[in-house]
Amino acid sequence: MITVHGFSPSGNCHKLRLLLEQLGQRYRWVEVDSSQGQTRTPQFLALNPNGKVPVVEFDDGRTLSESNAILYYLADGSEFLPADLWQRAQALSWMNFEQYSHEPCIAVARFIAGWTELDSPRRDELPRLRERGHQALAVMQRHLHDNPWFTGERYGIADIALFAYTDVAEHGGIGLSAYPAVQAWLARVRATPGFVALPEPDAQAAQRIALTS
Amino acid sequence: MITVHGFSPSGNCHKLRLLLEQLGQRYRWVEVDSSQGQTRTPQFLALNPNGKVPVVEFDDGRTLSESNAILYYLADGSEFLPADLWQRAQALSWMNFEQYSHEPCIAVARFIAGWTELDSPRRDELPRLRERGHQALAVMQRHLHDNPWFTGERYGIADIALFAYTDVAEHGGIGLSAYPAVQAWLARVRATPGFVALPEPDAQAAQRIALTS
Repeated sequence: MITVHGFSPSGNCHKLRLLLEQLGQRYRWVEVDSSQGQTRTPQFLALNPNGKVPVVEFDDGRTLSESNAILYYLADGSEFLPADLWQRAQALSWMNFEQYSHEPCIAVARFIAGWTELDSPRRDELPRLRERGHQALAVMQRHLHDNPWFTGERYGIADIALFAYTDVAEHGGIGLSAYPAVQAWLARVRATPGFVALPEPDAQAAQRIALTS
Repeated sequence: MITVHGFSPSGNCHKLRLLLEQLGQRYRWVEVDSSQGQTRTPQFLALNPNGKVPVVEFDDGRTLSESNAILYYLADGSEFLPADLWQRAQALSWMNFEQYSHEPCIAVARFIAGWTELDSPRRDELPRLRERGHQALAVMQRHLHDNPWFTGERYGIADIALFAYTDVAEHGGIGLSAYPAVQAWLARVRATPGFVALPEPDAQAAQRIALTS
């Protein structure tokens, strides 16, 4: 059985939960609170020297890190990753977009809003992160205006990768009202069989999000 | 024939030149100076709405963006990308590491040092970028202490992806002296058949790099 070492509020980790649930695959989840330094312990660094969740661990001891590489590995041979090379390349292109142009602004704005102190100096980063987040959403809007999904002709791992933080972009103060095609796509993803939502932020994070402008 | 729209001093673009040369594949290179806004023209945004190089364009008009997705597509079926799923997943994991934990500090430090004005406020980012760059190099050192390559058993696209900016990390003030296994790996990559180096920075960039501390 696969063990996922992950932090439940993290979209990068939730990607794996969503795919594993939709694959109907059994897994064990070990909670690792990266906001409390639990990815910096010697034990965790032995799993992933880069000190980041998620990591998956197999019964034979092999480990794999980086959320989108794990999605690719787990989805191979399933309906969530086309066998066609061109469609795979498109999925990988969107997943690289997610990790380079989307997550570092949309996910980081959310993290700062909900998981740092209200007087953290990191809050000065929010205006720039939001500006870049809107640029990423505009690129998605343009694609989704003409296409139902990001992984070729069907819902798949690029949709899962991009859904994770887009669905909670408003936590970081990045509203979706200007992106109707993105909103419609989010609704389509939520309607896929076996869909599970990211858990709501805990009370402290929810309060910080509410107090962040 | 493939057309690469790229900026020659960019490591992300050079990845493609290196792979195409090593594959012995013919290609056309269209120079796009992203430091001069040429990735923000309507013509370029029609190729890649995200406004980034590299983009490859095929004779039938199809386009593909994101350097590591392009490496995957071009290397499929060659010695540079193993067919084995586990090895592919490892290669993708390292390429995601490159785009998330390596390029945004090591490449960006180099860009700021060489391609921004000497009084640019962006230079305030350098200490933090260098600190994070050293963290990424330490992760690579640990892997390369025990393994010759990043793509399974042989040189391949993860090596190409990580080589690009590691080889010029010193341009951004990130020295490699503490990472002997990284230095030995760089030498092995340089010795691969068909290797081509990133062009030297132009005179202005070289002068700025020399004056950056």
